[in-house]
Amino acid sequence: MRCHTEYLHYTTAHRRELVHLTPTLDEILARAAIQEGFMLVSAMHITAGVFVNDNESGLHQDIWKWLDHLAPEKKDYRHHLTGEDNGDAHLRSLLIHHEVTLPITAGKLDLGPWQQVFYAEFDGQRKKRVIVKTMGE
Amino acid sequence: MRCHTEYLHYTTAHRRELVHLTPTLDEILARAAIQEGFMLVSAMHITAGVFVNDNESGLHQDIWKWLDHLAPEKKDYRHHLTGEDNGDAHLRSLLIHHEVTLPITAGKLDLGPWQQVFYAEFDGQRKKRVIVKTMGE
Amino acid sequence: MRCHTEYLHYTTAHRRELVHLTPTLDEILARAAIQEGFMLVSAMHITAGVFVNDNESGLHQDIWKWLDHLAPEKKDYRHHLTGEDNGDAHLRSLLIHHEVTLPITAGKLDLGPWQQVFYAEFDGQRKKRVIVKTMGE
Repeated sequence: MRCHTEYLHYTTAHRRELVHLTPTLDEILARAAIQEGFMLVSAMHITAGVFVNDNESGLHQDIWKWLDHLAPEKKDYRHHLTGEDNGDAHLRSLLIHHEVTLPITAGKLDLGPWQQVFYAEFDGQRKKRVIVKTMGE
Repeated sequence: MRCHTEYLHYTTAHRRELVHLTPTLDEILARAAIQEGFMLVSAMHITAGVFVNDNESGLHQDIWKWLDHLAPEKKDYRHHLTGEDNGDAHLRSLLIHHEVTLPITAGKLDLGPWQQVFYAEFDGQRKKRVIVKTMGE
Repeated sequence: MRCHTEYLHYTTAHRRELVHLTPTLDEILARAAIQEGFMLVSAMHITAGVFVNDNESGLHQDIWKWLDHLAPEKKDYRHHLTGEDNGDAHLRSLLIHHEVTLPITAGKLDLGPWQQVFYAEFDGQRKKRVIVKTMGE
């Protein structure tokens, strides 16, 4: 058994943005050279998420609109008394969840045909990190 | 350390349906013969979820009503411009989450007395898969 | 590879309460003496959650208000026909999610600077459990 760890860094152009991670994760897995195991992909911030869904731009617009509705940007979050303005980003991180665990089989990410992995930035335009830790044999 | 992988296939009778997975997972774990470790149970689709909660039919009705409210079926999702009609199913997959990691202790799923594992189909009536990957010793 | 398992017990003073777990998890990891791997932190109940976010009291108030809105306490859940009164707690467990997987690197929880782990009790004032299972080398 062994572990392989890499850190990804993203400074998104916009405050809210999706980054398609799957090609990068495939490269990491090739370097890890692990045949069977799990890959944990986890945002290292409390205003970002990681999720698995479709790489379809219309759906991505639907997701942003949905998040605007369920965890809206607004002024009166108590968290803003600290000087922050990103209360919505914290709630979105909870809703979307900040990490996924992916199965590895025969040296590949064992995903369904439409499953793609995304980093969801909810308060970007600054350097943020994602840890990718692979454990297996 | 070793891994044991199985794939479950479900074609649900209805578009939306819950499938109780716990008995099947117990059987898989017996075949895996792993004493200590983790079991990843992950939908291989982007319109389905996996969750842990109570096996109580009234609660299940509450969950469906709640999802109807938070991620409603409606015509005007942008995703539907692709010809799809399942925008709600994608959002429900994000909300419920598509995977769980379960602890294994002394050769058994180490769940609380009321914890049961469910596959949540949000766009069924076609063959779909769940991966169950067990890693441990 | 080896596993180390501990169970935490909490009887919260209030029905709804957050418990900051990070210091306890650090202690468990020191006892586990695992350098590289994963730590699964999972509520063993269906009316509780585990999440990673900021240890900031204003944000915690925002989270409770948000949950009151998205998964409200109300009388007419079908689940209440069983005699229970905690339908909202089940839905909150689904929304927040009941478990997180944390990366371990160089013998420490490999979290971002603001990431803290919380047990979220949605129906407490009785003894409940959290399993902490560490797997690695």
